[in-house]
Amino acid sequence: MDTSYLLPKQFRTSGTTCGIKDSGRADLAVFISDRSAAAAGVFTTNRVVGAPVEVSRSRVPSKNVRAIVINSGNANACTGEKGHEAALAMTSQVAGELGCQPEQVLVCSTGIIGVPLPRDVIAAGIPNAVAACESTKDGFKDAATAMMTTDTFAKLATEQVTTASEKVRVSGAAKGAAMIAPNMATMLAVIMTDATLTPEQCDAILRFATDRTFNCISVDGHMSTSDTVLLLANGASGQPVTSKADEEIIQQAVTNVCQKLATDIIRDAEGAAHFVTIDVSGFDLRETAFRIAKEIAESALVKTAITGNDPNWGRITSAAGYAGVEFDPAYLSLTINGMVVYRSGSPVLFDEALLSETMQQKDVHLLLELSGGPRSGSQSVRFWTSDLTQEYVRLNSEYTT
Amino acid sequence: MDTSYLLPKQFRTSGTTCGIKDSGRADLAVFISDRSAAAAGVFTTNRVVGAPVEVSRSRVPSKNVRAIVINSGNANACTGEKGHEAALAMTSQVAGELGCQPEQVLVCSTGIIGVPLPRDVIAAGIPNAVAACESTKDGFKDAATAMMTTDTFAKLATEQVTTASEKVRVSGAAKGAAMIAPNMATMLAVIMTDATLTPEQCDAILRFATDRTFNCISVDGHMSTSDTVLLLANGASGQPVTSKADEEIIQQAVTNVCQKLATDIIRDAEGAAHFVTIDVSGFDLRETAFRIAKEIAESALVKTAITGNDPNWGRITSAAGYAGVEFDPAYLSLTINGMVVYRSGSPVLFDEALLSETMQQKDVHLLLELSGGPRSGSQSVRFWTSDLTQEYVRLNSEYTT
Repeated sequence: MDTSYLLPKQFRTSGTTCGIKDSGRADLAVFISDRSAAAAGVFTTNRVVGAPVEVSRSRVPSKNVRAIVINSGNANACTGEKGHEAALAMTSQVAGELGCQPEQVLVCSTGIIGVPLPRDVIAAGIPNAVAACESTKDGFKDAATAMMTTDTFAKLATEQVTTASEKVRVSGAAKGAAMIAPNMATMLAVIMTDATLTPEQCDAILRFATDRTFNCISVDGHMSTSDTVLLLANGASGQPVTSKADEEIIQQAVTNVCQKLATDIIRDAEGAAHFVTIDVSGFDLRETAFRIAKEIAESALVKTAITGNDPNWGRITSAAGYAGVEFDPAYLSLTINGMVVYRSGSPVLFDEALLSETMQQKDVHLLLELSGGPRSGSQSVRFWTSDLTQEYVRLNSEYTT
Repeated sequence: MDTSYLLPKQFRTSGTTCGIKDSGRADLAVFISDRSAAAAGVFTTNRVVGAPVEVSRSRVPSKNVRAIVINSGNANACTGEKGHEAALAMTSQVAGELGCQPEQVLVCSTGIIGVPLPRDVIAAGIPNAVAACESTKDGFKDAATAMMTTDTFAKLATEQVTTASEKVRVSGAAKGAAMIAPNMATMLAVIMTDATLTPEQCDAILRFATDRTFNCISVDGHMSTSDTVLLLANGASGQPVTSKADEEIIQQAVTNVCQKLATDIIRDAEGAAHFVTIDVSGFDLRETAFRIAKEIAESALVKTAITGNDPNWGRITSAAGYAGVEFDPAYLSLTINGMVVYRSGSPVLFDEALLSETMQQKDVHLLLELSGGPRSGSQSVRFWTSDLTQEYVRLNSEYTT
């Protein structure tokens, strides 16, 4: 992973303040591709969605996207017909600035739910935001910063790979740290590449990457109304990607960028004291392993045990047991931070004090393995989560609308 | 609901101390029917279950159960073959005392997971426990008390109804307050009636009641390895229940007793400051409404909003939105403590300060209604939950194995 956070060729971005946030912090991000880009998107599956999700979802996959405009501080969700008009207006105005069609602009909003979007404030800020776009490292960082709500740090990633014929760069920016303020609509990510991809390739690559990264993280299990991941591929690096091998190189680069951004979200989780990696292996299907990993990640009792540095294996195996997967516990084993605590369905004597001491580190690793019986196989999944602390509860209960 | 907590005819119970708990508190409960009782059971659907669940599950429905023996302080779960033998031994010894077959005795255990059951301690206590059984109010209260782990009060209920031909009493005892200590195996309930029912009637009535009560509560969404609800019907009141009308009278009485016990568990939830009743109505199927109610009840963000007396409707509607039910948000309305906050998909102006003030009461009521569109209909569900407080996190993270 390259940490110099460069933009791919012919992308320019900015992050400016238009005045949605009382704090005066940056609240308007613009991502421009100087040439038409193939685009794909993955969106929240919540039935209650923000207006920007409806607008952007209707415009991808696409072969000619020119820009993405994002405001933070207001999610423009549960705002009715006026909210829909406001989202359309944002894309029309950016299109006017760039001399393209409104359909070539995508839009995201993140922040408070149920409050009308301050259209005039955003409209006044857009010309400056478009004019401020630059291809520099600062422009990239500014855009990531302007997406933030309760995040404590900007989340960026860049990956450079070489296909059979050329060098390709993949860069991404994301925001998200759980739903703290009343109805913060949570996670957004923009991935850019100068590779030359068709809309169908964009879509397939983005779904592959999202399934293994953004869909494998959970802070509190609450799915927001605005979650959106967008991929733009503008082809500025030259050759179309036609071979399967080259496609896999780019797919892996996009996955790496997404993983860096997704794990950054967990590292920035509200009130969290631990960063937990959960590996579940030995199942028949990836989906089976995924269900178990997600149940473990979202158990309040597993999370609080980790908060207390407690190698409480019973909470972990019992969470696996209620995931709705018909495995035989006699083939189940659990390893915490490299120490086996439960093997083939029976407790193992282990040094609890020593293991608890290793759990005082921020990073904790759980490995749950199935070695036989129904639903066993060769599939595995990796999932990331945070613990559940008194600070999380304080943050989420003391804030009042 | 009668609050005098009487046992039905020809039931005797006791709660004594055999010495499993270091605290010296009561830890052995025995429920005896002086005549063979029809019996049914509902058990955890966790794949990882305690040995007593395996033993009792194999013995119901039954037409001739004589006793239930329950120990607290040790769940006898994840204890392998020795655990299974220990559970069988408990039933054999009680059967010996009563002069019946081991198969006529059911068993439950609740407490720590993964620690061998102290068989000798329990064996030494059983003769005294059986001898202590009495048909008095004290005997009933003692049995409920001996089932407790982290509960702060004993949970009992009695209901008296009159069928076409006779008076029938239904009484129950339960324990449960979430999974606090490492691996506390959570919820147990015993329901007794002197009605004359077949095993099939017992089974149908118990499933009806459990679906509407014990399966409609959630403290932290963690399903234990030992959850068990048992119903004994000993027929001491006389006439077989043959008419549908009489069966419904008894079914309602059993449901009322189960509801009292289930809501007592929520009132006793660890660290909870609020008791939340969630009504979801206007859906096509009870199951659809149930999924939405459960998603709301188990959302950490909904729970922490209630902790903070915050009428944060966006967290509630967005939790409904990710329950996997394809409804149209334009037909959704939400009422909190009798005040409409969201109507037909749009926010409603309401007095937030006043509503927040009403939420300072322990009891909070949420009503989510669907008035049209896909999945709408006439089905509803009532669900109960607690809030999520810093005290819950402290209790569940500071305890160390």
